[in-house]
Amino acid sequence: MSKKTFTSPDVPAPDILRCAYMELVVTDLAKSREFYVDILGLVVTEEDEDAIYLRSFEEFIHHNLVLRRGDEAAVAAFSYRVRSPEDVDRAEAYYQALGCETRRGDFTKGIRNALRVVDPLGFPYEFFYEVDHVERLAWAYELQGAGALVRLDHFNQVYPDVPFGADYLADLGFRKTEQIADENDVTYAAWFARKSTVHDTALTGGSGPAMHHVAFATHEKHNILYICDKLGALRQSDKIERGPGRHGVSNAFYLYLRDPDGHRVEIYTQDYYTGDPDNPTVTWDVHDNQRRDWWGNPVVPSWYTDASRVLDLDGNLQPLQERTEAKEIDVTIGADGFSYTRKGDAVAGFKLGEQV
Amino acid sequence: MSKKTFTSPDVPAPDILRCAYMELVVTDLAKSREFYVDILGLVVTEEDEDAIYLRSFEEFIHHNLVLRRGDEAAVAAFSYRVRSPEDVDRAEAYYQALGCETRRGDFTKGIRNALRVVDPLGFPYEFFYEVDHVERLAWAYELQGAGALVRLDHFNQVYPDVPFGADYLADLGFRKTEQIADENDVTYAAWFARKSTVHDTALTGGSGPAMHHVAFATHEKHNILYICDKLGALRQSDKIERGPGRHGVSNAFYLYLRDPDGHRVEIYTQDYYTGDPDNPTVTWDVHDNQRRDWWGNPVVPSWYTDASRVLDLDGNLQPLQERTEAKEIDVTIGADGFSYTRKGDAVAGFKLGEQV
Amino acid sequence: MSKKTFTSPDVPAPDILRCAYMELVVTDLAKSREFYVDILGLVVTEEDEDAIYLRSFEEFIHHNLVLRRGDEAAVAAFSYRVRSPEDVDRAEAYYQALGCETRRGDFTKGIRNALRVVDPLGFPYEFFYEVDHVERLAWAYELQGAGALVRLDHFNQVYPDVPFGADYLADLGFRKTEQIADENDVTYAAWFARKSTVHDTALTGGSGPAMHHVAFATHEKHNILYICDKLGALRQSDKIERGPGRHGVSNAFYLYLRDPDGHRVEIYTQDYYTGDPDNPTVTWDVHDNQRRDWWGNPVVPSWYTDASRVLDLDGNLQPLQERTEAKEIDVTIGADGFSYTRKGDAVAGFKLGEQV
Amino acid sequence: MSKKTFTSPDVPAPDILRCAYMELVVTDLAKSREFYVDILGLVVTEEDEDAIYLRSFEEFIHHNLVLRRGDEAAVAAFSYRVRSPEDVDRAEAYYQALGCETRRGDFTKGIRNALRVVDPLGFPYEFFYEVDHVERLAWAYELQGAGALVRLDHFNQVYPDVPFGADYLADLGFRKTEQIADENDVTYAAWFARKSTVHDTALTGGSGPAMHHVAFATHEKHNILYICDKLGALRQSDKIERGPGRHGVSNAFYLYLRDPDGHRVEIYTQDYYTGDPDNPTVTWDVHDNQRRDWWGNPVVPSWYTDASRVLDLDGNLQPLQERTEAKEIDVTIGADGFSYTRKGDAVAGFKLGEQV
Repeated sequence: MSKKTFTSPDVPAPDILRCAYMELVVTDLAKSREFYVDILGLVVTEEDEDAIYLRSFEEFIHHNLVLRRGDEAAVAAFSYRVRSPEDVDRAEAYYQALGCETRRGDFTKGIRNALRVVDPLGFPYEFFYEVDHVERLAWAYELQGAGALVRLDHFNQVYPDVPFGADYLADLGFRKTEQIADENDVTYAAWFARKSTVHDTALTGGSGPAMHHVAFATHEKHNILYICDKLGALRQSDKIERGPGRHGVSNAFYLYLRDPDGHRVEIYTQDYYTGDPDNPTVTWDVHDNQRRDWWGNPVVPSWYTDASRVLDLDGNLQPLQERTEAKEIDVTIGADGFSYTRKGDAVAGFKLGEQV
Repeated sequence: MSKKTFTSPDVPAPDILRCAYMELVVTDLAKSREFYVDILGLVVTEEDEDAIYLRSFEEFIHHNLVLRRGDEAAVAAFSYRVRSPEDVDRAEAYYQALGCETRRGDFTKGIRNALRVVDPLGFPYEFFYEVDHVERLAWAYELQGAGALVRLDHFNQVYPDVPFGADYLADLGFRKTEQIADENDVTYAAWFARKSTVHDTALTGGSGPAMHHVAFATHEKHNILYICDKLGALRQSDKIERGPGRHGVSNAFYLYLRDPDGHRVEIYTQDYYTGDPDNPTVTWDVHDNQRRDWWGNPVVPSWYTDASRVLDLDGNLQPLQERTEAKEIDVTIGADGFSYTRKGDAVAGFKLGEQV
Repeated sequence: MSKKTFTSPDVPAPDILRCAYMELVVTDLAKSREFYVDILGLVVTEEDEDAIYLRSFEEFIHHNLVLRRGDEAAVAAFSYRVRSPEDVDRAEAYYQALGCETRRGDFTKGIRNALRVVDPLGFPYEFFYEVDHVERLAWAYELQGAGALVRLDHFNQVYPDVPFGADYLADLGFRKTEQIADENDVTYAAWFARKSTVHDTALTGGSGPAMHHVAFATHEKHNILYICDKLGALRQSDKIERGPGRHGVSNAFYLYLRDPDGHRVEIYTQDYYTGDPDNPTVTWDVHDNQRRDWWGNPVVPSWYTDASRVLDLDGNLQPLQERTEAKEIDVTIGADGFSYTRKGDAVAGFKLGEQV
Repeated sequence: MSKKTFTSPDVPAPDILRCAYMELVVTDLAKSREFYVDILGLVVTEEDEDAIYLRSFEEFIHHNLVLRRGDEAAVAAFSYRVRSPEDVDRAEAYYQALGCETRRGDFTKGIRNALRVVDPLGFPYEFFYEVDHVERLAWAYELQGAGALVRLDHFNQVYPDVPFGADYLADLGFRKTEQIADENDVTYAAWFARKSTVHDTALTGGSGPAMHHVAFATHEKHNILYICDKLGALRQSDKIERGPGRHGVSNAFYLYLRDPDGHRVEIYTQDYYTGDPDNPTVTWDVHDNQRRDWWGNPVVPSWYTDASRVLDLDGNLQPLQERTEAKEIDVTIGADGFSYTRKGDAVAGFKLGEQV
């Protein structure tokens, strides 16, 4: 059980609109460009020798992803847009009241007067309002390939103490939409939303702070299947880590890829509306074999174990804290773990027994 | 040009979450049930001899549509959910300050302590917070047919003076996302959102107050095509009024049906995120032949001319006011109107010339 | 009623495999290339100043379409592949026995020792076996756009006397799969297959010999919708003549485009297997409003009235013969015609009355 | 290397049209009915206490699948339709010349005067022409669920000596369309077609004669995804053995299920046209990790090891012969095997290393 408790700073939290972009440090900008632009088809808003600013087809702000050249692959920022310039000030006051390190400034092209902080969990968070508008290419079908990415959907963060992190995110105004737990009140993962989808970010229990994945949305499931087909045609099918499949959590259709640095990217479509304040939180049993894949297909171990390191405001790697509670991989797979398709059904499915 | 101006009541508007349900008066409950339940597959939450309460598959509140038996087909309520019980009170004060007739009470099963008003445009609007939660059937694929309706998406209202209506809706907190206008500043239609889609409601210029359509969303385009295929198989293809097609406005894929009383129902999927306060408003030229159908397919005249009457709080038909400004049907079709595929291109497309 | 009867030549017909390619004469090769290559995405096998050889993604023979530069838009050949070199000889003997003009030779790049004839209906038919194999790009997803054309599906020919043409095609070994007729035994159109789809060619009653359309297949319906979306984005939606929709006849999903010369191209997907010799022939009532479009959407008049001229073996336009029997457009639309959604239902659908 | 050679009987082979139906022996008819009818949605043509006759939505012959109650799960017949009654006689003469046991008669409802044989590989094959026609439900969309099975696509047979089996099937008139082999001329599997798809049957190297799977086709990929979603909703996701995925071989989209007796059923869509006599045969390297799944997702071991037993004409289990050549599972997975994503690339993909 989590012992640490989050103390609300007693100053108002900023009004967060949505996850807006992630800044990734990549070790070979040309290789990353090939992955994100040539293969995945993200739109280049702007680029120079050090960085590429990318957006999805339905975006009207400057970027949803920054690839910045660096020596070590990592995540430099999880960035959220807030409702007004004043909300950036509110964010500054909020994190200062929490005793977090904060900085104001223009950290990327296209965005001005942003706030960057190392949050209470150790993640580099950004909040901004001022941003250049660019052309929304929603109608530009002549530019959209068969696997067009139309929106940034969410982040996913790895952190050891999910309940502590959940309290912090709740204080910051996020609604918890779903979670994975067990009968002993251990929480393995939880999902948090500001916009009216299942999440803007999620916490996955594990050694952290670390970045589990960043997710882009397509319109339909066949768009995701096409991305797989294209990777096969390019003989890069080993970029596919897990899926495609249907999530239990979120009910979305998914695919997990690994970029040239190993950063995990999810392609995602069709979760549900969560915008009401009393939106019911869904709790999944960690032993339910359909929680992570509704079709019961196995989760590859790397999906549980690998994550990207995150940076502090000076660009140094944040140290990792180990998870002390039970780990999802241990309680569900292998000699000491178990999963069921039907609760109470003694028979393990043949897939589980044979695959791991 | 619109002369009438909307005066803000100087009390705060309620915080509206989303369009939540429409109450339709239907003349033959059995026939309407066949249409909405047997054909379209909406989920019956509850029903009795006088009314059927229906919801979409991803809904967790009691209903998204009420079919109530009556002598004359009409619309009894456009109902919105607000963020809190206090917002219902705020709505009451807001409309009373506007001099509108208001009533508090339980107007349908499953919803308590709602406010109904006749709004400044003459529409029967409802606002509520308290509602029974029911099972969200998002994961119940065994119940979902090939054309599953997963969400209520929006209303569309017919009203003569679009700019006046737009001022009122803006005061009520709606963001204007798109509009159709001409070079003389005549506005033919406009779209308004509270949730982060293109609209929760829209105003279509014409004789009103009247109801143009109510729209439900599917996940994918093939779900909409299936509904057409099924109507063909049932020899009810004459229930299809317009489409399927791709809208210019909203960029969504659409289909318009007419229910047994002639109420228009849209099936709709895949518009874009509009939740940022500075979301760009898109203005379409009324002469752009791709504004209503991105593929340039003709709009059937009935789509412009037909609408459902709306009721006051006593169940009497609201009188209609004629539109005095130019009408979209007149300026775009036929001898006195024109449309273009490419602005400045003298040649009218063969489709236009030959079809109408 | 048709009086003319087809007399079988008493020599064996060739064993035809499938429709293989059409040779189109186009007046502006660059414009046609833009349409077929840049917009529709057909694969260029080979091209020079006078001709472009195109194929679909799953094809392994040299081409499915030849665009040849000429002064007047027309069709130079409807070409079929036969089972063996001997079948080309059989075709030659067959047509010579019928008294038709025949020529042997290499009429296009990539194909050798073909036979061209002017058939008993006046159409320029070709039969060949010897052909260059090229790479089948079925797995080349990195080259395939969202609207990828994967196969040539069929031809459609306009001819005044459908029963006479049907007798000829039956003698040539085609199975009649579907037809449109009325209660007076007038046949308005019929469909004919060698491969196991609904057709390799069809006869549409009208002034002929003329070419109604050539059809390419996609894998899924969304591929066809994307082509419409792309044409909209390119402001070329006026290239869409009819559809997209679901056919009654063939049960396929369809779209009709017009190329820069007005040649009609269908994009088509998902008809059914017809390869058994006793495959049931489906007969549609000409007054059934779902025969041409299962959703009852109107057929634009140009679709009935326009067709491409065909050439003789010297490249001269074949003269047109008028249809003398009742015409489908006349018996179904307008003051003298009628269509029904439900046979015996007196009420014409609102769509028909309002649209034409 | 295979030593056994197939000797052609010097009487003509029958003209086979297509795989037509499989007769499965099932141990619990009610459970099997639930799987094939309630879950997969096959159409019941006829049923009694001992057998259920099922067909797909586009079929016009009496059945594509017979479920017959028995004590031991097995396959009683792989049945092909031939072009004419005379072809049944030809089949009889052909197999008698081969020294095979043959029987003529009415083995199932709806089919008359069929031939059953134990073929040279030990499989119970049937050939028939005379069959009851039933309604083709292609247009009956009101009956078709979201995962509608529209055609029987193919059989897949397990047999130790693939080259010997291939020679026999070639003699019987099948075209070999694809195969999996290695640099030592070991053939691991091969695909054979009569109709113009990639196969009517296939040979998978292994202990046989046995039945690997029977495959039904859907129109689109989302139909297959829906079947997975529905199995999840019914808490029967453990019926999913492998997939969904994209095959390398055949380029089709696939899913493998196991019925209540463990019989394997594939759901399959979108392979390519193979009807030309010189259709190129595709050879895949057994070490190519994209041959079985184009996305490089792992094949579960049960898919290689499990198969259904087949019966002789008296209903007794045919004895199994072991495969003596190298096995695909051994040469591709685990300590002694290897697979590559890019030939010559030393690095094994992380998926392989981590999953098995």
